[in-house]
Amino acid sequence: MNGLSNLVESAAASLAFVRQRCPRVHCLMNTVVQKFVADGLAALGAIPSMTSSPEEVEAFARRADALVVNLGTLNEERRTVIRLATSVACDARKPWIVDPVHCDYSPSRLAFARELIEVGPAVVRGNASEMELIGDVDGVLRIKTGPVDELRLDPDAVRVANGHPLMAQVTGTGCLSGALIAAFMAVEPDRLIAATGALLTSGIAAEMAAKRSSGPGTFEAAFRDALAALRPEDIIANARISHAQG
Amino acid sequence: MNGLSNLVESAAASLAFVRQRCPRVHCLMNTVVQKFVADGLAALGAIPSMTSSPEEVEAFARRADALVVNLGTLNEERRTVIRLATSVACDARKPWIVDPVHCDYSPSRLAFARELIEVGPAVVRGNASEMELIGDVDGVLRIKTGPVDELRLDPDAVRVANGHPLMAQVTGTGCLSGALIAAFMAVEPDRLIAATGALLTSGIAAEMAAKRSSGPGTFEAAFRDALAALRPEDIIANARISHAQG
Amino acid sequence: MNGLSNLVESAAASLAFVRQRCPRVHCLMNTVVQKFVADGLAALGAIPSMTSSPEEVEAFARRADALVVNLGTLNEERRTVIRLATSVACDARKPWIVDPVHCDYSPSRLAFARELIEVGPAVVRGNASEMELIGDVDGVLRIKTGPVDELRLDPDAVRVANGHPLMAQVTGTGCLSGALIAAFMAVEPDRLIAATGALLTSGIAAEMAAKRSSGPGTFEAAFRDALAALRPEDIIANARISHAQG
Repeated sequence: MNGLSNLVESAAASLAFVRQRCPRVHCLMNTVVQKFVADGLAALGAIPSMTSSPEEVEAFARRADALVVNLGTLNEERRTVIRLATSVACDARKPWIVDPVHCDYSPSRLAFARELIEVGPAVVRGNASEMELIGDVDGVLRIKTGPVDELRLDPDAVRVANGHPLMAQVTGTGCLSGALIAAFMAVEPDRLIAATGALLTSGIAAEMAAKRSSGPGTFEAAFRDALAALRPEDIIANARISHAQG
Repeated sequence: MNGLSNLVESAAASLAFVRQRCPRVHCLMNTVVQKFVADGLAALGAIPSMTSSPEEVEAFARRADALVVNLGTLNEERRTVIRLATSVACDARKPWIVDPVHCDYSPSRLAFARELIEVGPAVVRGNASEMELIGDVDGVLRIKTGPVDELRLDPDAVRVANGHPLMAQVTGTGCLSGALIAAFMAVEPDRLIAATGALLTSGIAAEMAAKRSSGPGTFEAAFRDALAALRPEDIIANARISHAQG
Repeated sequence: MNGLSNLVESAAASLAFVRQRCPRVHCLMNTVVQKFVADGLAALGAIPSMTSSPEEVEAFARRADALVVNLGTLNEERRTVIRLATSVACDARKPWIVDPVHCDYSPSRLAFARELIEVGPAVVRGNASEMELIGDVDGVLRIKTGPVDELRLDPDAVRVANGHPLMAQVTGTGCLSGALIAAFMAVEPDRLIAATGALLTSGIAAEMAAKRSSGPGTFEAAFRDALAALRPEDIIANARISHAQG
């Protein structure tokens, strides 16, 4: 990494790539936020798909450019489906990300998250409680999101401070950030650049949306508008990024 | 069909019938857009139901006035449920529509779409890629939706040019149009009039909504407002309709 | 109950408790409105969870402060899950509520609603058709919601007249009111006060939202904004409450 301003410029360029190339992102997404995530990807210019049936998931994973595996509303069938899809992604060397939602609530979910991380995702993303349980993982970019996001892939460690407190009142903003990271990885092979691009896009769009909102409901609509309108130059002008401590 | 202006007048009248009669529409709908479709039907004045369990679907299908079968997020249980519900609809001569979502992604889904079309829906609706795979079907009204919608039922062929590009950034507008067609068929026995009414309603509402929007998020809310507010005279004043080439 | 003005004051205070204590509410919620309900709870300050898999539901129910059991999109697995979760709630003396959605459509769903009510929820809430079938139940607070809500727990009977007709055009407002009642019960042991607080909150927020709306789509966003902004003094100033007839 040649310094933070290079990282921001590359991250901004990756937004332009997403808009040009319209990558397909297959989402194994909890049932709560499927439409919110699909709409967020569509606002960005990506093409979402969501099916999670055992007989169809491999065909969808093969057509996708990247995969996001979200562990919300997990059950036995969904475990089977996730194993099938991640196997397709690994064989075809497509980037994929694990989002271990609420692995701090359920021991069986934590065990499955660890099983998946062994398989070799490019990225794992969670909140502070989730990432504390996940711990250190060699060769995987670890992202802890919150008021400030932290990205760690030895020897790099970056903090992204963009965002807005209203995001915490909208169910699914964390899940969406996982899907956006997948979309950026589909067009940018350096996953630190890709994830930084996704988190800056989401955080700066949230800041723009908050100015047009009077609460979480109008914020959610304005956030989608801002995701659709955001330009690479907005990222360069508004990025708040720093080196993280070791 | 006695000319296009008669078709538009009948289509506008069918919107008035939906608002008066509040038909029940049972939706076997992919899990992604269930609330969006239910809200769109409610804005129109119809009464949606959504259950898709084998032990309950027949009771719900019997109470419904029309049925929409959407193949998104298909799995084995959903196939069973769809067979049960379409059997009830056929026995009771209730109108139903098949929406073969993403049948171009998965061979097993395409095979199931073809099986269903043999059973005898009134309408099949998809995008260009999906409808190309479905091909010609005797006795079924085929609708290809996109920037311009095409409706074909020999010897008639009609094009509806209303709509707005923001619809493509909102997940579920295609799925909703299938549900709206079912609602119109519940009150108008001529399916070409019914489907034309549904597509004009959706397309003109989208045009009105786009004027009040600053992106896909505010557009989605304004589109629902416009669906609730649209009047038959708005259809007559704004319809852009023509004969399609053979 | 020491008169209606005391009830309103206590109900308003319970809104303050929810905002302070941020209770966890586990929702066994139909798949249609999961995000809408999660967002409504989050706007109130509560922490929603939604998983409904047999292997995880007990861990989630144990961490929750209250439980809402909604019978929409019911199937066999969901029945198993509901039995597991309500058993945890009963053992730990956590408050829970049953919402027998559409039990008037399906005999098997009505039978299951009756089975659950035997187990001992604090509250059962439905619309007029549903509550007529449920009938009288000893020791359970019965709530019939509609243009005017009625709450009955012998010898008390209260009517809440706040609300707005646009609520009926938004899929899930009834389901959300069940979840809000659970959130209020998590912080207020008197369930009549808790449920009154939840229904006043929802109804007054809807009245505020309607003033900023031009239809059901903009109303839904404004309603979430109003849920987030509503203060105890708004409840005291705007409550429309009366004794119900016997």
